[in-house]
Amino acid sequence: MNEFEYRDGVLHCEGVALQSAADRFGTPLYVYSRSALVGSFQRLSAAFQKLQPRICFSIKSCHNLHVLRVLRKEGAWFDAVSIGEVRRALEAGAAAETIVFAGVGKTPEELALAVRLDVGCINIESEGELAALAELAARADKTIRAAVRINPDVDAITHPYTTTGKSENKFGVSFEAAREMLLVYTGHDHVRLSGLHVHIGSPVRTVAPYMEAINRLLAFIEEVRAAGAVIDAIDIGGGFPAAGDEQAPAIEEYASAVAPLLEGRALAVHLEPGRSIAADAGVLLAKALYVKQGATKRFVVVDAAMTELIRPALYRAEHFVWPVTPGADLVPENRLAGARLPQTVRVDVVGPVCESGDFLARDRWLPPVDPGDLLAVFSAGAYGAVMSSQYNSRPRAAEVLVSGEEAHLIRRRETYDDLVAAERDADR
Amino acid sequence: MNEFEYRDGVLHCEGVALQSAADRFGTPLYVYSRSALVGSFQRLSAAFQKLQPRICFSIKSCHNLHVLRVLRKEGAWFDAVSIGEVRRALEAGAAAETIVFAGVGKTPEELALAVRLDVGCINIESEGELAALAELAARADKTIRAAVRINPDVDAITHPYTTTGKSENKFGVSFEAAREMLLVYTGHDHVRLSGLHVHIGSPVRTVAPYMEAINRLLAFIEEVRAAGAVIDAIDIGGGFPAAGDEQAPAIEEYASAVAPLLEGRALAVHLEPGRSIAADAGVLLAKALYVKQGATKRFVVVDAAMTELIRPALYRAEHFVWPVTPGADLVPENRLAGARLPQTVRVDVVGPVCESGDFLARDRWLPPVDPGDLLAVFSAGAYGAVMSSQYNSRPRAAEVLVSGEEAHLIRRRETYDDLVAAERDADR
Repeated sequence: MNEFEYRDGVLHCEGVALQSAADRFGTPLYVYSRSALVGSFQRLSAAFQKLQPRICFSIKSCHNLHVLRVLRKEGAWFDAVSIGEVRRALEAGAAAETIVFAGVGKTPEELALAVRLDVGCINIESEGELAALAELAARADKTIRAAVRINPDVDAITHPYTTTGKSENKFGVSFEAAREMLLVYTGHDHVRLSGLHVHIGSPVRTVAPYMEAINRLLAFIEEVRAAGAVIDAIDIGGGFPAAGDEQAPAIEEYASAVAPLLEGRALAVHLEPGRSIAADAGVLLAKALYVKQGATKRFVVVDAAMTELIRPALYRAEHFVWPVTPGADLVPENRLAGARLPQTVRVDVVGPVCESGDFLARDRWLPPVDPGDLLAVFSAGAYGAVMSSQYNSRPRAAEVLVSGEEAHLIRRRETYDDLVAAERDADR
Repeated sequence: MNEFEYRDGVLHCEGVALQSAADRFGTPLYVYSRSALVGSFQRLSAAFQKLQPRICFSIKSCHNLHVLRVLRKEGAWFDAVSIGEVRRALEAGAAAETIVFAGVGKTPEELALAVRLDVGCINIESEGELAALAELAARADKTIRAAVRINPDVDAITHPYTTTGKSENKFGVSFEAAREMLLVYTGHDHVRLSGLHVHIGSPVRTVAPYMEAINRLLAFIEEVRAAGAVIDAIDIGGGFPAAGDEQAPAIEEYASAVAPLLEGRALAVHLEPGRSIAADAGVLLAKALYVKQGATKRFVVVDAAMTELIRPALYRAEHFVWPVTPGADLVPENRLAGARLPQTVRVDVVGPVCESGDFLARDRWLPPVDPGDLLAVFSAGAYGAVMSSQYNSRPRAAEVLVSGEEAHLIRRRETYDDLVAAERDADR
């Protein structure tokens, strides 16, 4: 089932008409489907079932506490990239041992807190970090589980900003450095360095880069095991595309290519999906404010902006945009950005922020839009609200979680007082 | 005087050593110089003195209430692009009539509030907005001063995201549309449409585009005045580069080119500078966490990220970065990004955020940096803190205003509780 679908000409999220959600909660508004979150988690789980993986939801993709709670109840573990994310997972009810703490720039304070909180695993990004962790763990007289993040020098063929496994990227260490770290720390009293971690980017729209990265890791594991290292876990990262991404294979294809490589290797397998679980589970609703005809372009000015969704400006991401009540015969059959129905008009959908980079969609064929009409920006559940800002002194949007016929507010809309609170506090 | 300078090998902001500011307030940290803010405001004032302009500080460039207060005391008016910015100006003590409310996507609620608050001028971006304003003003039985923003179709030759005066940009209306609006509204009871507004982009590193835009507007004014329109004000926008921008002329060159065009025209002149006042008045301080040698690059991982300063990722902006205590003979003579001193090492300065777009500087020759060392990112006073986000669940940085020997906290550092407050509130 597709949780966002048009019924009698009106876009619904599960049993909730999105026009009524916008009337009730205002716009701009993020709306998530509980059923879509659960469904994509279960589908991914089923696809990789042979590996019995620990599915660590990538908190950074959609960090709302209420979303994390939904996934925890499904059995998700959590991938955190800051102590703020670790604390979110804990507040959402996760056990500390189900949290993996990753990230290239953990501060001394964050590492110390992670040791104190007994997180399940710390993914190490440099020799300096490993030494710092060993010292902190010794001081606390604990043994901390850790993994080395390896930079496999594999091209994930995605946007340069979201390619993370090439040698010119800041992430991970080389195989040579990893070998030395593993051998030096074999049998260490306070750091059990027995995992390997790799993450090549997001979204990764072909299977081959995963296979290449995993094969390199497996050869490496054979080699270091022979030299005496104990390796019992492999984290193959995330980056799987959203289900609605027509340019990418289905998750089952990734799983059926990857699983045979990892079966029977005596390795616990971690996955770190974010986008593939959350992206299609959310839409951003925006209201049209003005329609203006420029000399060369027609603009639909809406009340959402780069402050709500920066992906189009930052990554040239193409989100499908369509009216919530498009009128008869204008319900699109699919979400291909180039879809063109009769009566549509070519427009740029732009926001109120004062720069030309503030657009949500450019050169799209849309049904006629009038001021007051509601537009839905699809596949906005991942890397949407989490990247929002208050630029131009814009209070951030509210977020709503739909479950069946019910819509629950899960983040209240900000106010002017929220914008200035930390500045007023400074006077005290 | 340069308010950020090295004394005895340590970077100071006015009388405050930045190492001590970082020790006291933590990092990442924004530090602004009161004297630099005042100095650049006064310099701009003096440069354009013949025109007796109303200098409307562009709030969006640096919206902290305490910064706005400093400029208000200097006699600044304010350019606001949202009702949140209007309210910031009022909270900073500005009189309503000194606030210009601009922006391409004002909501009905924002327009209504602007009418109620009696802002000095509303810059109109479309026919629909003008009609809405006329109705609101009539209902309130007020007469509101307004200006039409014209899109002059002039290329400011800057980043595509910050070019705002070309016909394919969403801003303003064509000369034809403006003519009709002006003539229809001549003598209107509730909207006094007697100003013209133009803004071509930022930073605009040559004088010619301003002259071209202004000349087009002046010819247009002559024409519509002959047809009976009353035009008594012209707003030539902002976009003047920061004083430290070595690729751009000094502000005096802009002024001496522009002033002769506008003198004796019976036009009140508005300017909207942001960058030229605030950019060089602020630095972002970051602490080095790790130094790691990749296969092809050397990385300095610091505790500031794209969450604090997104300009490098979003606009490919090049901010000069240098250690706060660089060691003997390593104090740079100027800020040219390519400056190369002996003993320097080529590095990428990157943040902790989990994507490759998270960098502050790439391929820069820097003095050797060790973990714990402090780096300053220069010219970060404009479009820095205002664009920050909490991506990766990172609490936003503190801000400090230096005045002589004193450093005052003007925005407290955020906490984990701030990150989740609006989500917890939603439960109530």
